[in-house]
Amino acid sequence: MTDCLFCKIAAHDIPADVVFEDDAVIAFNDIAPQAPVHILIIPKAHIASANELDDGHAHIVGRLALRAQALAEERGIAEPGYRLIVNCNRQGGQTVYHLHMHLLGGRQLGGLG
Amino acid sequence: MTDCLFCKIAAHDIPADVVFEDDAVIAFNDIAPQAPVHILIIPKAHIASANELDDGHAHIVGRLALRAQALAEERGIAEPGYRLIVNCNRQGGQTVYHLHMHLLGGRQLGGLG
Repeated sequence: MTDCLFCKIAAHDIPADVVFEDDAVIAFNDIAPQAPVHILIIPKAHIASANELDDGHAHIVGRLALRAQALAEERGIAEPGYRLIVNCNRQGGQTVYHLHMHLLGGRQLGGLG
Repeated sequence: MTDCLFCKIAAHDIPADVVFEDDAVIAFNDIAPQAPVHILIIPKAHIASANELDDGHAHIVGRLALRAQALAEERGIAEPGYRLIVNCNRQGGQTVYHLHMHLLGGRQLGGLG
């Protein structure tokens, strides 16, 4: 998607503070962090939102979660705890229409929104 | 796990307001809903938290997300939007130590916690 911000980040056409990358996934620090650790983990392939997941690629969500777990471990927040969030569409609070998982931690997290 | 609340719900040993069930997944309304739609979607198999996910069963997270998507569609919140949350350990806000995905929607969701 030529007009997708996260596709551009995945393609390294736009800079981001990348903390992990493999063939299918890229992770980078959120530019407006809401917790001491706030990383976005995304599939490189364009999936607009959780509504577009299907049997063929839903397993990517597991891969995002596993990467979140590894990053949480790396940042020392695995044991104290963290939160994984996927927002879908307006009422969910989605602002970029490329599927992304938020990893938040480093402080006590409160209500679910 | 004989002392796990959600294992007991999955086994129908404790009643819950079940909204979906198949061989691997069960979903039920949260007893303290934080939004008009607040459903918990869990694997029937006991996985204590996101920290215990591994390559062998991380795909279950994709299955939880797909089920959330279907339930969102059913409840009419897919298009307006919804939020998927997995809390891990204390700082994440996890209260029951059996992996569960929150599906929240039916109102504008706010901050990430």
